[in-house]
Amino acid sequence: MTNQLHSKLESLAALETGLWDKDFLLTWQYRQEAIRGVLLAAEILEDLAAAGVSTRVFETGLGISIFRDKSTRTRYAFRSGCNLLGLMTEELDESTSQIAHGETVRETAAMISFLTEVIGIRDDMFLGEGHKYMTQVSDALCEGSLQRVLLQRPAVVNLQCDLDHPTQSLADLRHLVSMFGSLEALRGKKLAMTWAYSPSYGKPLSVPQGIVALMTRFGMDVVLAHPEGYDLVTEPLDAARRFAAASGGSFTVASAMEDAFRDADVVYPKSWAPARVMHERTRLLRAGETAQLADLEREALANNARFKGWECNESMMRLTRGGRAEYMHCLPADVTDVSCKAGEVSASVFERYRLQTYREAGHKPYVIAAMILATRFKEPAGVLRRCVERGARRRIES
Amino acid sequence: MTNQLHSKLESLAALETGLWDKDFLLTWQYRQEAIRGVLLAAEILEDLAAAGVSTRVFETGLGISIFRDKSTRTRYAFRSGCNLLGLMTEELDESTSQIAHGETVRETAAMISFLTEVIGIRDDMFLGEGHKYMTQVSDALCEGSLQRVLLQRPAVVNLQCDLDHPTQSLADLRHLVSMFGSLEALRGKKLAMTWAYSPSYGKPLSVPQGIVALMTRFGMDVVLAHPEGYDLVTEPLDAARRFAAASGGSFTVASAMEDAFRDADVVYPKSWAPARVMHERTRLLRAGETAQLADLEREALANNARFKGWECNESMMRLTRGGRAEYMHCLPADVTDVSCKAGEVSASVFERYRLQTYREAGHKPYVIAAMILATRFKEPAGVLRRCVERGARRRIES
Amino acid sequence: MTNQLHSKLESLAALETGLWDKDFLLTWQYRQEAIRGVLLAAEILEDLAAAGVSTRVFETGLGISIFRDKSTRTRYAFRSGCNLLGLMTEELDESTSQIAHGETVRETAAMISFLTEVIGIRDDMFLGEGHKYMTQVSDALCEGSLQRVLLQRPAVVNLQCDLDHPTQSLADLRHLVSMFGSLEALRGKKLAMTWAYSPSYGKPLSVPQGIVALMTRFGMDVVLAHPEGYDLVTEPLDAARRFAAASGGSFTVASAMEDAFRDADVVYPKSWAPARVMHERTRLLRAGETAQLADLEREALANNARFKGWECNESMMRLTRGGRAEYMHCLPADVTDVSCKAGEVSASVFERYRLQTYREAGHKPYVIAAMILATRFKEPAGVLRRCVERGARRRIES
Repeated sequence: MTNQLHSKLESLAALETGLWDKDFLLTWQYRQEAIRGVLLAAEILEDLAAAGVSTRVFETGLGISIFRDKSTRTRYAFRSGCNLLGLMTEELDESTSQIAHGETVRETAAMISFLTEVIGIRDDMFLGEGHKYMTQVSDALCEGSLQRVLLQRPAVVNLQCDLDHPTQSLADLRHLVSMFGSLEALRGKKLAMTWAYSPSYGKPLSVPQGIVALMTRFGMDVVLAHPEGYDLVTEPLDAARRFAAASGGSFTVASAMEDAFRDADVVYPKSWAPARVMHERTRLLRAGETAQLADLEREALANNARFKGWECNESMMRLTRGGRAEYMHCLPADVTDVSCKAGEVSASVFERYRLQTYREAGHKPYVIAAMILATRFKEPAGVLRRCVERGARRRIES
Repeated sequence: MTNQLHSKLESLAALETGLWDKDFLLTWQYRQEAIRGVLLAAEILEDLAAAGVSTRVFETGLGISIFRDKSTRTRYAFRSGCNLLGLMTEELDESTSQIAHGETVRETAAMISFLTEVIGIRDDMFLGEGHKYMTQVSDALCEGSLQRVLLQRPAVVNLQCDLDHPTQSLADLRHLVSMFGSLEALRGKKLAMTWAYSPSYGKPLSVPQGIVALMTRFGMDVVLAHPEGYDLVTEPLDAARRFAAASGGSFTVASAMEDAFRDADVVYPKSWAPARVMHERTRLLRAGETAQLADLEREALANNARFKGWECNESMMRLTRGGRAEYMHCLPADVTDVSCKAGEVSASVFERYRLQTYREAGHKPYVIAAMILATRFKEPAGVLRRCVERGARRRIES
Repeated sequence: MTNQLHSKLESLAALETGLWDKDFLLTWQYRQEAIRGVLLAAEILEDLAAAGVSTRVFETGLGISIFRDKSTRTRYAFRSGCNLLGLMTEELDESTSQIAHGETVRETAAMISFLTEVIGIRDDMFLGEGHKYMTQVSDALCEGSLQRVLLQRPAVVNLQCDLDHPTQSLADLRHLVSMFGSLEALRGKKLAMTWAYSPSYGKPLSVPQGIVALMTRFGMDVVLAHPEGYDLVTEPLDAARRFAAASGGSFTVASAMEDAFRDADVVYPKSWAPARVMHERTRLLRAGETAQLADLEREALANNARFKGWECNESMMRLTRGGRAEYMHCLPADVTDVSCKAGEVSASVFERYRLQTYREAGHKPYVIAAMILATRFKEPAGVLRRCVERGARRRIES
């Protein structure tokens, strides 16, 4: 074992994450050491993978995902993260299950959990719904565990809800750490989380909410910028304010992209829908009001179109620190002249940072594996140490 | 190894199940020792899982499922059961395969079996079809094995057909054993398998058929009760009569729910469609007679509605032994005022037994794994003993 | 280790396949030793599987498939081949991913590859498209690997494109070797790759193209026969001519089934669409010209119907060497009076060779595993030797 690895394992062992036998739902619910623990475990898992060390900590066991919205990278990150630890993944297809026959959430939760270690859920379409659904699953699993219906309690991992997207924001934080050298190096750095124009409407709020609520915890100066009316949900904004005050960073809201970009070290320009529109959309979808939904979409797109100037282009980038801020995106981005006529980012800016956004995404499988380790094992550091000591390799060597 | 485990393994080793290199299709086709063997292997697998012992008996190999009807718990039980033994599961999606291009059953069976250890099939929609299809697959695998097309012959496991639902009935029997203490303790206990009202029509007959044909083998007094016209298929009823005579139990048919519930130790109230309706439905579906199908459904629902009194409610439960019979259900149940206006069971009765029904379902993954062990290994007891002796754990320990 | 196995491993070690860290797309792109290497590795994998030796060379890792057309045997061969080496398989469902949201091919390729060892792709519907798409994925993976976005570069394996179907043709070659005794024994044998009548239109060209371009490399006398107008793409035909000249075999094109069958040692009668029709179909599908597509289909079927005489029946078989040529087919075949009124092969001929066609298909999982071994390991022979030496078994032994 290298000295560096040894010292990372020592640091991890020293952290009291409080995550054992719990879920990972909203980052702001968890103490600082939980965030640090997941981040460090992800980093160690990356080191071990690069060194060819097998981190198969489960001989058998399931990782089940429930996707109530489309997904490529989070879906594969979940599959890869589970596989990295030895779990077989399955995806619950609600259309082919008996859920349509009237199963309750708590019943389904128990039925898929008898030999399951983690349940990953994406439910981000309806504001006010996704997080609620995850807590219902979580409550059912607590009951199942307490009442000895289940041999073990699977952890629920939020793969994006209406409030937060923690596997994304932690992969993003991991990316910042790898670019700036350490968590400590982020102190005093300015991050611009800004709205950007997109020719589509109805994009979830969870990414900007997750970013401001997480990055404020480490002394960054976080500026949130969006056109009037594109407000986010208050809970994560309140968390951001609280965290900024505690960490010595800051959290401000601006109404111009330029203000956020000026002297920024990191920019994260991304479209989202106004919370008001998302609430209304949820109501109309539930009521099946097709005609009114079409009206809402038309209105929302027309409103978006008033803010085509919110594009991350070369002149906007020149405002950033030295004109060379790091650019981040959760992908896929709406790239002007590539995937749409006018979008969130110009082709030349995106192309310059394209591989960086891939690397950013590349942390996600490890972050998810780290969340599983932290929630399913009492001593994640000890488990990782055992992986190194037993000497098993990811692939046979000739 | 504990003494108790040692003695269970000895008992298992002493049983001549006759299942090696065979399938598991209809419980009444197999000798008593086969049933006892699967039941005991399931119990040992549960013990080992609880003790953290890895039962990964396959390093590689596939478990393939074919679901021709919706499923949650059986689907996940199959996946979990396979995973518990080390098999990777795949589900044959007939809509994306070349079966639509005119492949024969025997050809498909061979094509998915080259490195496969078990094929689980649910085909319960059409009376007269499901079991027939499974035997066609089974015949094709026999040919493939005899003619050395296949390296090994996968076992076919019936995940519910038109005649039987053996993974359910054996999980139910396992549940009864765990509640009453032993198979022997079931002798003389009264079990009421009764029809119950549901606002849907067309539920399969395989659960009541499977229950009466299995529980009569162990000296239970089994009463089947249903309204006039809701007859089951004769084959399992004949088996039930035969088994009751041989085991010293009894099998009677009643025409009132109350008669079945009176002094019952166990009640299993569940809706099903009359065999006559299912036969007619199969004929109409095959002929594509949409209008007549709608007529049939209307007529069947109207007929169901005449029997709304067949509800398992508090006054019905008071008739059972001490008013405290065990309540069983294969789930999901139609619960009055929860999943429907009027259903199989009242909310207060169901809620009192809800967690018990989850525990009942929780045996299914182990029953399926036990079926795989019994059909794929000549000496399942020896294999389980090796799992204990080699000392591998389900999850790494720090 | 047996002497025979030892000697096969020595032969494999001596071959310079040049496949390490590469893809497997079109057989004619790779040198003779690459073909021999995959063939021999597949044979050794079959030997080891039959001997019960575990060839789990990966502890963790993903094998991802993308099927843009229906598939049963190739899909399961891929799943089985991956599983045989320890990879967990996942299938990218483009309809549930964000590809619909405007992801580029290169972005998707990176996103699914962070911990992936192989990506299998079927894209055979549109002439001029499938191979192009695979090279785009391949290029993206090269960039990802060079730019250190990816920890490892997954190999792309062609599971059928518009030009070639290498997992099929190599399984076919493996079948010929096992029937005739050795690669050398194929020298001078006559193989008839002929068009045959089918009541469907639009079958891909990749099988006949793949067969003629591969079998000519080993000194066989390959005759391609088809009615006027049913031309194949020129690239593989040119390769066939080149290979025939180099190997001392021959490649000729005939215009009557009888000419091809006369004195043939092997016949491969199979329907395909004229390249011209496929090009036109691609154009119309892209343009969404539904009415013209129906016209094209009508015209193509009418044209097919002029050649109902192209059926592999008993009188046709009597023309072959001793009336006993080997019959091959990639399955499913259009069998006259079985899957259609008039098809590629008569029922009596097909039934006589049916099990042989299953055995032919049975080589495919091993061929795919061999491709993965050859592309992902620098020394496949050393890796297989290690599998034998470590003594792990495919299944536990009691």
